[in-house]
Amino acid sequence: MTDLSDSPEAWMARALVLARRGLYTTDPNPRVGCVLVKDGRAVGEGWHERAGEPHAEIHALRQAGEAARGATAYVTLEPCSHQGRTGPCALALVDAGVARVVVAMTDPNPLVAGRGIARLREAGIEVEVGLLEVEARALNPGFVSRMARGRPFVRLKMAMSLDGRTAMRSGESQWITGPRARREVQRLRARSSAVITGVESVIFDNSRLTVRADQLELPDGEAIAARQPLRVVVDSRLRLPEAAACLREPGRTLVATVEGQDGEHRARLEGAGAEVLALPAGADGRVDLAALLAHLAEREDANEVLLETGATLAGAMLDAGLVDEMQLFVAPTLLGGEARPLFALAGLEHMAQQRPLEILDIRAVGRDWRITARPR
Amino acid sequence: MTDLSDSPEAWMARALVLARRGLYTTDPNPRVGCVLVKDGRAVGEGWHERAGEPHAEIHALRQAGEAARGATAYVTLEPCSHQGRTGPCALALVDAGVARVVVAMTDPNPLVAGRGIARLREAGIEVEVGLLEVEARALNPGFVSRMARGRPFVRLKMAMSLDGRTAMRSGESQWITGPRARREVQRLRARSSAVITGVESVIFDNSRLTVRADQLELPDGEAIAARQPLRVVVDSRLRLPEAAACLREPGRTLVATVEGQDGEHRARLEGAGAEVLALPAGADGRVDLAALLAHLAEREDANEVLLETGATLAGAMLDAGLVDEMQLFVAPTLLGGEARPLFALAGLEHMAQQRPLEILDIRAVGRDWRITARPR
Repeated sequence: MTDLSDSPEAWMARALVLARRGLYTTDPNPRVGCVLVKDGRAVGEGWHERAGEPHAEIHALRQAGEAARGATAYVTLEPCSHQGRTGPCALALVDAGVARVVVAMTDPNPLVAGRGIARLREAGIEVEVGLLEVEARALNPGFVSRMARGRPFVRLKMAMSLDGRTAMRSGESQWITGPRARREVQRLRARSSAVITGVESVIFDNSRLTVRADQLELPDGEAIAARQPLRVVVDSRLRLPEAAACLREPGRTLVATVEGQDGEHRARLEGAGAEVLALPAGADGRVDLAALLAHLAEREDANEVLLETGATLAGAMLDAGLVDEMQLFVAPTLLGGEARPLFALAGLEHMAQQRPLEILDIRAVGRDWRITARPR
Repeated sequence: MTDLSDSPEAWMARALVLARRGLYTTDPNPRVGCVLVKDGRAVGEGWHERAGEPHAEIHALRQAGEAARGATAYVTLEPCSHQGRTGPCALALVDAGVARVVVAMTDPNPLVAGRGIARLREAGIEVEVGLLEVEARALNPGFVSRMARGRPFVRLKMAMSLDGRTAMRSGESQWITGPRARREVQRLRARSSAVITGVESVIFDNSRLTVRADQLELPDGEAIAARQPLRVVVDSRLRLPEAAACLREPGRTLVATVEGQDGEHRARLEGAGAEVLALPAGADGRVDLAALLAHLAEREDANEVLLETGATLAGAMLDAGLVDEMQLFVAPTLLGGEARPLFALAGLEHMAQQRPLEILDIRAVGRDWRITARPR
């Protein structure tokens, strides 16, 4: 099949490429790829495409047929040991007579980690673990976070001018960045389980927060946009207008508020299609953001969430240590010192209190630049 | 001598490399390099090192000796036709019997442009003009600007956090960027004829605005630091303290104020070594910045000036269209929405009024990033 140099790293890299094909579609499952190799050739390839459909290993075994016997399986995630629609993958590998399994990373759920590997080893299969593990974990930051920490991976996206401004003082902001950057934002939404925003952003921009098939510029855009990420509006005082555009879009809108907001407006919002979630208030009387994330992980199986909002909520999430990655789209323009700031951060008076970041990547995106960073 | 592929572009590129050796030392003269080529070999190389010393062509001719006869001279700037200390270079090339001269760019002074080339041609020498002209002009942005526009090339340097802040609200700012970025700033000062700052920056930071030999990290740091750029403090109301550190440093400090500030403080400042320059006031009652730049070009032969200041003066220079290049040193940190902004820009209320930039370069400088941009 595919012509590759015959090294374990190259085969696992191929499995990762296959896994990545599920980037926009496997949610809430992880992206997983599998290659079956015999005599230096790939005899079967597969990836998980969609929840409810077969896992990567099953696709690869079906493609390989009898050739799977005696082959080495390269899998980006530990094969499952539980009974799914197509049976546990570990058992399927055993039944197919696979001789050896190379696993990039163990299951990130500490409660089941190692069980699939144990099943394989019990059946006499040689198992190696940890090849390209860093790369495998990077492919599923949300699934890993949800399983290991009980909360989603939070990616903060902001569009800013070179002088660190996200909008004019009036709130006017369309458009700071160009079409290429906006396409990238669409793709960030499409890979996310949920998009979180603040009620003020919704009130001002009346944004729909949806994935638009035509703006993804991906061959399978329609199929991707068929799954809309959950829209989450943080709205401590329940001010979301029932006429908000996001309530009329395909998919669900969750309005996260604090307990006790039970008036008529709540009923009207629910009548307009919103799901209102009452959470305990944090110390500042607003929605407890950690509780919101825990809810999204536990009740909504949210892996990656995209935070698209203004300085207040973005600053509160940063202050609470709840931001895992920042994607800043920087436009080559100046908006001036009166324009809206990137972050409202609490209690920052001295240089010693600055919030250090680690910049992971800077690259051109059309006429703009994308900076990927994370809090240190 | 140097082994190079024998193409005109390669020889001119070599001449540009030679010219660049004078980056920190030729002021107020331009950086110029020259290579004499015969039979596919460099027979003489030279560059202008210091005002008052021989021009590039003279060094190259001396090195070549008799071998110059029949050679091709590659020169990054049109040879001069005026009587300098070592005579006009055009004449020296004629006398040495050079057969052909390739010139990257004509003299940027419109009053003398073409005279050197005419002299060569009158003597029967074949002359070509324009090879690697863009690169040659880029080497002397200040000299070109002074000659062609009657004002220096203005390079604005700022150190900022990723959220576009230059200091805490209190003014505290040491240090946003790391030692590598600060070394680059030292080098920017060292190549400049003058450093311009606002009086508030001096009052707050008491900065010396000098080139420090040890911080340049260049082999000839001591020789470079022997020439200190002119320090220019924009001080419309003459508030500079006579105890300011910059007044006690080697080199000159020019205090630019508006006409009529003739009180005792002016006398005290002059007593402390400052040179006070009274300029007409602009429409806002402050120093007319265009008049200041014209003064620096005409009276101080300033080629490149480095603007190191805060949001007010930086914004005023931008608003006046007087900034040619921006070098933004961006530290991977957040200072928050209360910290000091990058630019105070006048009348910026709507997105349509944004100030577009062209980003020329982004690169890592230690743990920081340097963005080179220019107003569009």
